[in-house]
Amino acid sequence: MRWSALAPGKRLRPALVMASCEALGCDPTHSLDVACAVEMVHCFSLIHDDLPAIDDDDLRRGRPTCHVKFGEALAILAGDALFALAFRVAANMKASAEARADAVSVLAGAAGTPGLVAGEVLDILAEGTEPNLEAVQQIHAWKTGSLISASCVLGGIIAGADAEQRQHLSEAGRWAGQAFQIADDVLNETSTADHLGKAVGSDREKSKQTYPALMGLEAAKAAGEECVERAVEHVQRLPGPKEALQSLIRYSVDRTL
Amino acid sequence: MRWSALAPGKRLRPALVMASCEALGCDPTHSLDVACAVEMVHCFSLIHDDLPAIDDDDLRRGRPTCHVKFGEALAILAGDALFALAFRVAANMKASAEARADAVSVLAGAAGTPGLVAGEVLDILAEGTEPNLEAVQQIHAWKTGSLISASCVLGGIIAGADAEQRQHLSEAGRWAGQAFQIADDVLNETSTADHLGKAVGSDREKSKQTYPALMGLEAAKAAGEECVERAVEHVQRLPGPKEALQSLIRYSVDRTL
Repeated sequence: MRWSALAPGKRLRPALVMASCEALGCDPTHSLDVACAVEMVHCFSLIHDDLPAIDDDDLRRGRPTCHVKFGEALAILAGDALFALAFRVAANMKASAEARADAVSVLAGAAGTPGLVAGEVLDILAEGTEPNLEAVQQIHAWKTGSLISASCVLGGIIAGADAEQRQHLSEAGRWAGQAFQIADDVLNETSTADHLGKAVGSDREKSKQTYPALMGLEAAKAAGEECVERAVEHVQRLPGPKEALQSLIRYSVDRTL
Repeated sequence: MRWSALAPGKRLRPALVMASCEALGCDPTHSLDVACAVEMVHCFSLIHDDLPAIDDDDLRRGRPTCHVKFGEALAILAGDALFALAFRVAANMKASAEARADAVSVLAGAAGTPGLVAGEVLDILAEGTEPNLEAVQQIHAWKTGSLISASCVLGGIIAGADAEQRQHLSEAGRWAGQAFQIADDVLNETSTADHLGKAVGSDREKSKQTYPALMGLEAAKAAGEECVERAVEHVQRLPGPKEALQSLIRYSVDRTL
């Protein structure tokens, strides 16, 4: 659990939780527990996705993947235990009972079906099929977008967001998630394993459905930019300090890692 | 998810949730959602435990196991999705926000570390080592006892149990869980695959730490009886109709399935 959860990473999702909390005018440290819960859900999904039966990746965040280091059995169980711990942390954080139950509901909804796990299933089923824009968008919306969108909403829950603010956070996160995934696909084509800390070119080898495979590299980059614009439009409707949240959204496509 | 969760099974854990709710004088149907959540956590754990990397079992509840039917990748993800759904259902059930957050906390605590997943890890690490009573009890307490004990507590949460009642439910469940696991070990030695719907003799083949391996069959059966007595002592302190809960506890050792 520690090997994977504490590996060097961008921590984009927990940063989004805290920046979203701040964008509503609330002290971002109040959202630290649920930010950790989101990162644990993310790490659980990385551990399981890297398993030999799924993506069979050996390298993650510059380290051997969990199953390479500890064996498949312990990797499956480490993922399961991180997933359980995420919900325990969210259910016990310092917040009203209403906020805690709400946070668990949002987190579980984003992680399951429809959501992260459902997206992984679609991704597996789509391998080797003809690239198709609608299919790619659905895969990304579930596999990446749902947890990124949930991250923004969870920061809002801690800050006591009303329904309209929550909707803006959800939409901002949804567009940021799409931008992030496009950048991820682009980096998988253009970067090096040494720089990324994970295998590159692996998507193409497996004929995965990606934006570059579908529309070419340059058009994919432009689509990423457009997603960032839309996300920022929603952020601008929020009442608190928005700099951190806007920078994170920009970073989701500008990053080289 | 449906293949595994809706397979014919005893549904002991959800029945314990509902009987515990009733034993506090509350309508047991009020606990139906959280009872389903417990069964989903149980099924998630069966799917993952049966995987080739862990117990490598082909038969469960009289059917091919999830990975035999759908492949390893989908089995891992079906387990993950059932786990997520369990928390979503518990967080959204008809109950106060306090009860919903509390239920998620109890369920996540019982499922993770320490709890069900931690017990599975200990079980794996203990394979092939010398049988040892303390180790066996710790494995059982986590792997089986924690979710069975949580089932009783969760029924109590729905019924608004006070701290003392909750403690009796927790203890009753803990002893019932130990009785249940002893009976499971005994049946693995004495029954047939055709009758149980899963492989038999598999524990001994893998040199798993079991009560019969440790103390012999007859002494193991007597130990199971003693656990039932202790569980029933705690149940007798509860204020509502106790017949269903007592029968279920008795059944945990008298069962032939």
